[in-house]
Amino acid sequence: MKYGVVAFPSKKLQDLANSYRKRYDPHYEQITPHMTLKDAFEADDNQIKEISDEIAKIAKRHRPFKLHASRVSSFSPLTNTLFFKVDPSPEILAIHKDLHSDPFGKETKYTYVPHITIAQKMSDSEHADVFGQLKMAGINHEEIIDRIHLLYQLEDGSWTVFDTFRLTGDEQ
Amino acid sequence: MKYGVVAFPSKKLQDLANSYRKRYDPHYEQITPHMTLKDAFEADDNQIKEISDEIAKIAKRHRPFKLHASRVSSFSPLTNTLFFKVDPSPEILAIHKDLHSDPFGKETKYTYVPHITIAQKMSDSEHADVFGQLKMAGINHEEIIDRIHLLYQLEDGSWTVFDTFRLTGDEQ
Repeated sequence: MKYGVVAFPSKKLQDLANSYRKRYDPHYEQITPHMTLKDAFEADDNQIKEISDEIAKIAKRHRPFKLHASRVSSFSPLTNTLFFKVDPSPEILAIHKDLHSDPFGKETKYTYVPHITIAQKMSDSEHADVFGQLKMAGINHEEIIDRIHLLYQLEDGSWTVFDTFRLTGDEQ
Repeated sequence: MKYGVVAFPSKKLQDLANSYRKRYDPHYEQITPHMTLKDAFEADDNQIKEISDEIAKIAKRHRPFKLHASRVSSFSPLTNTLFFKVDPSPEILAIHKDLHSDPFGKETKYTYVPHITIAQKMSDSEHADVFGQLKMAGINHEEIIDRIHLLYQLEDGSWTVFDTFRLTGDEQ
């Protein structure tokens, strides 16, 4: 089964992201707006208890963090994906690092770019057009994220929350 | 903001429910398959902390319960809704009762019918046709539910998990 770890922003930021996703993101139906902290990974039923326990430990080591969505950006030319860029604060990078250290395997080979996807899988011309519009609209939103979620994916591609972990910082 | 409390069944049961929902449930995109424990209710940001704390207390009073989906049934003639009927065990009814006692207000005036919706908002003729088919297919599935979730609804009707509560029975 595929699992992943995300933070869901506030209703306000999710509603804004969905106003774009509804039109421009074919994954709109599969999950509500989110910032991925750990990409989809395979685990079986036996492993997930251990993984869940490990994420619980990580959550206890980190305090709630500020999420600052500061501008609309694009992964082009890699992919035609538009997103709210989230400032890569030391706090966010530290959680990401813990979620990619043992026992989760080594660091990823890509630089982590915290973001909330708002559009993807567009043609080059649609991407250029929509990027122009959304850059103009812009984004500048700050909020506090105090929890992260472990999700699993259903056969139809949609995601269900398996567990929620409060960022308490109790065991720093 | 609208909140609700649900239990998500296992991936296996969700995948089965979605194979029907994909065709017959217009709410398919808004939430993954679930058994509602407390219908949508209004609460503001100030109240939700208290509500969440109360649900946490309730979760500690109840142990994991058996979910037995025993047959395909319909709410017709009330509504043309088809669902996996979940046997109303004393354990499920007890959690439901706690979620409808103070401070959540009084008991609902309707009898609680635990279920997982698989089709709704169909015409009378479609309902009769699909009900016939799904009754034949039937359902007989048992599993253990060890957690419940508090969700909130976005403007587009989709639901995001706010928190997850393990049914521990630690404080019975």
